[in-house]
Amino acid sequence: MLIKNAWYIAAWGHEVGEQLLARTICNEEIVLFRDRETGKAAALLDRCCHRGTPLRFGEVVGAGVQCGYHGMVFDCSGTCVAIPGQKTIPAQAKVRAFPLVEKDEFLWIWPGDPEKADPTLIIDYPWHNDYAKWPHKHATYHIKANYMLMVDNLMDLTHLGYVHKTTIGGNPKVHVDAQMTVTPKETGLHFMRWMLESSPPPSYTKAVQFQGEKVDRWQEFEYFAPGSIVQWSGALDVNRGAQDNREQEGGFQLRLFHGLTPETDNTCFYFWSTGNGYKQDDPQATEALFGEIDRAFKEDKAIVEGQHAMLAKTGDQNLVDIVSDRARVHMRRTVKRLLDAEAVG
Amino acid sequence: MLIKNAWYIAAWGHEVGEQLLARTICNEEIVLFRDRETGKAAALLDRCCHRGTPLRFGEVVGAGVQCGYHGMVFDCSGTCVAIPGQKTIPAQAKVRAFPLVEKDEFLWIWPGDPEKADPTLIIDYPWHNDYAKWPHKHATYHIKANYMLMVDNLMDLTHLGYVHKTTIGGNPKVHVDAQMTVTPKETGLHFMRWMLESSPPPSYTKAVQFQGEKVDRWQEFEYFAPGSIVQWSGALDVNRGAQDNREQEGGFQLRLFHGLTPETDNTCFYFWSTGNGYKQDDPQATEALFGEIDRAFKEDKAIVEGQHAMLAKTGDQNLVDIVSDRARVHMRRTVKRLLDAEAVG
Amino acid sequence: MLIKNAWYIAAWGHEVGEQLLARTICNEEIVLFRDRETGKAAALLDRCCHRGTPLRFGEVVGAGVQCGYHGMVFDCSGTCVAIPGQKTIPAQAKVRAFPLVEKDEFLWIWPGDPEKADPTLIIDYPWHNDYAKWPHKHATYHIKANYMLMVDNLMDLTHLGYVHKTTIGGNPKVHVDAQMTVTPKETGLHFMRWMLESSPPPSYTKAVQFQGEKVDRWQEFEYFAPGSIVQWSGALDVNRGAQDNREQEGGFQLRLFHGLTPETDNTCFYFWSTGNGYKQDDPQATEALFGEIDRAFKEDKAIVEGQHAMLAKTGDQNLVDIVSDRARVHMRRTVKRLLDAEAVG
Repeated sequence: MLIKNAWYIAAWGHEVGEQLLARTICNEEIVLFRDRETGKAAALLDRCCHRGTPLRFGEVVGAGVQCGYHGMVFDCSGTCVAIPGQKTIPAQAKVRAFPLVEKDEFLWIWPGDPEKADPTLIIDYPWHNDYAKWPHKHATYHIKANYMLMVDNLMDLTHLGYVHKTTIGGNPKVHVDAQMTVTPKETGLHFMRWMLESSPPPSYTKAVQFQGEKVDRWQEFEYFAPGSIVQWSGALDVNRGAQDNREQEGGFQLRLFHGLTPETDNTCFYFWSTGNGYKQDDPQATEALFGEIDRAFKEDKAIVEGQHAMLAKTGDQNLVDIVSDRARVHMRRTVKRLLDAEAVG
Repeated sequence: MLIKNAWYIAAWGHEVGEQLLARTICNEEIVLFRDRETGKAAALLDRCCHRGTPLRFGEVVGAGVQCGYHGMVFDCSGTCVAIPGQKTIPAQAKVRAFPLVEKDEFLWIWPGDPEKADPTLIIDYPWHNDYAKWPHKHATYHIKANYMLMVDNLMDLTHLGYVHKTTIGGNPKVHVDAQMTVTPKETGLHFMRWMLESSPPPSYTKAVQFQGEKVDRWQEFEYFAPGSIVQWSGALDVNRGAQDNREQEGGFQLRLFHGLTPETDNTCFYFWSTGNGYKQDDPQATEALFGEIDRAFKEDKAIVEGQHAMLAKTGDQNLVDIVSDRARVHMRRTVKRLLDAEAVG
Repeated sequence: MLIKNAWYIAAWGHEVGEQLLARTICNEEIVLFRDRETGKAAALLDRCCHRGTPLRFGEVVGAGVQCGYHGMVFDCSGTCVAIPGQKTIPAQAKVRAFPLVEKDEFLWIWPGDPEKADPTLIIDYPWHNDYAKWPHKHATYHIKANYMLMVDNLMDLTHLGYVHKTTIGGNPKVHVDAQMTVTPKETGLHFMRWMLESSPPPSYTKAVQFQGEKVDRWQEFEYFAPGSIVQWSGALDVNRGAQDNREQEGGFQLRLFHGLTPETDNTCFYFWSTGNGYKQDDPQATEALFGEIDRAFKEDKAIVEGQHAMLAKTGDQNLVDIVSDRARVHMRRTVKRLLDAEAVG
């Protein structure tokens, strides 16, 4: 069961240009392209209404997308504007168009009822537009798991001590003992974790030189249902008052955007970007941060794909929630509420 | 839904010899071999009646095919003629045999009711026997699509301008504007296309040196339901009276045989041969022609496989027929009539 | 349909140590490991009861297996003994444990009702503990076939003349004409085959130098339902009285253990070991014997996988039993009786 009436990331803006880009999103076969005249990106069903041929085999022409089989042309709204050898275009000659909005380097798509697509619901991620203060880099993973398992992963950070021991994790006890405040929100939830007087994990000490051995470390997450998570993490030496002011020189901080987009019920795309908030003038630091996160997130991918395969074989009965599942359980409740609302219509 | 009571190409004659050749045809598991004594090719179900082992693991012996597991032997009619260690052969010890006829370099198989297999229904392709006038070369493709989509492809030649732009196609407008005459036949249909005063496509100008820039170009197709198409294409310089006499020196012409054989509902074999009718004494010309056609047909394979995959995912509802679909629609009606007749029995 | 209430080989003892070993057995997802303190091997369901993550992603710790996702720990009985960040462990926090017994270099597992798991039912294979007299070597194959087809294979040895012509088989007629005595047993069956005054097969003459050209050759098999077969084969020169005393100098003899363990309904593991009973002081002979058997058994694997694929496509109707199927038919009846008994409960 996938939520269709929602904004998901379909692609990074730069991925879509003159070349057609085909991608399955929420079980819909989609083709993305950019209008030659206006430069506006568009999303159509990747299926010519003539013989069902994927439009990805065609090409972008002045008037829209031309099917590569018999040459029919469709504009950004999916309306057929040309049929070779034929003057009259029948009214039923059209393909479905999906609402698509470009914002903050993302292309956001609405796979559900277009009548309900309200662009004001799209979240803001202003840090993507601020290269001076937040130089960043991004990646896309294809994950063989239901997207909810990836959101689960991000809602229970005690996994850092086990899955990411050698990267962004560090000592498991630090994560288990973290102070955590969960705040429900209309659009999802917010949580704040403080690991005061803790040893920084390997990725942090690789990135910056702390003065002492202990830091005050934070992880601030905001979850926007169903698939977006905005993260701000970092650490400052103890006694620098991190809890009052996190944006001080000499500390470590990063911003992460996590966008989970269902491809099918059993697969998803993980669009993520990471911004360097500690050595903004050093492109090497941005690269190194990206490399470190990339290594860690591939650890998540591996274990979540294993989890998905096991649940697909054995079902999800008899699972036991534990204390660290608080945010995850809240998240799941939010998603269930949205699914129920969508079922009612 | 596949038509079983029909002759399909099972293999090229030269493919079948001492070695057993296993091939799925119309969802039947078939093994082909040539009788050692008579040289006659035969087709049996590729399944020993003892323990279900594929006969392809065995070998051709004097009396027929010997199963490679426990040694039972079956003759060309599928009758068991030897059981190791046993004198009496029970009546039920036999495997199904399929009618098989060798003709014009093809092995034609009848996957349906053997009682209805009438060899006089097999079409003639005499050009395969005329190496002097029609030197030829052939290929077999395995296509991940229902065979009907490949027949569709050959019934609407407006695709040449889009799919085969750089090979046998040329300018799309030429194809769209072609004069086309479709003639229904009892066994299928015939169509004739003339592209008068048109620019020859890249494959043609590579093959011969026309006098001027414009040619009269033709495509003559005869479709024999369900899977055979006989084609004669060519071009002569304008003003040479091509419409009255196509077989003149200095022009370009080729013959093509297209045989589509269902493997399963979702896959098929495409047996095709192309004959050089313009430089018969030049083996290089035959090779070059074959190479050009091969390149073009792989373009068809790619787009038709994409189309099949899309239709498999999304169904075939809401497709819109256009003017260029005339022959295709007629072909589909013929096939539907045969399927309905077969369902009645 | 698989028999669950039975002992099957899960692994060779040496395969299981500090590293977790995941294996599907009778459609159950299993993880095997060895307790750090006691050295005892254990088998748990490979699925953490928290979020369904495969335990194979975790590691063996002092108290048992620690899940690699959020750190829960389970002991050899599947009881959860630690939940990070939580003092109380709920009663339902446990994973299923499977009876596992180590004996004669095997790890025997009982995938069914643990209440019925009686270790005294496990067969003896003392030759694994006698390296002086029976130096041996083993292998594990993954076979894409129902395990019954592999047992079938071993119950009808007339296949040796066809499948193993160039290895352990030899002349088909020898096998067809073998004297064979089948004796039903409570736990399966026993059969004895004598091929008196026969030519030894290639594998035998490679291994030892017989005095003459003819040997008395035997194959003694005992089948223990559902998946174990104990074999003793060999040959002595004629006139040495092999039928009275098989253990004489200068002959050839080997012992084979065949253990078939269902992975799923369509796949199985073939655990086999072969012991050198003719040149015990020559490690090269043990290697050579192993190599010869390995080559022959891969011939079985190929044909049985082909057989399985064909039966999966075409069903098992209309198969015809022949005289050489005597032991096989008896074996199948035994298995059916066990399946019926299990269905009743």
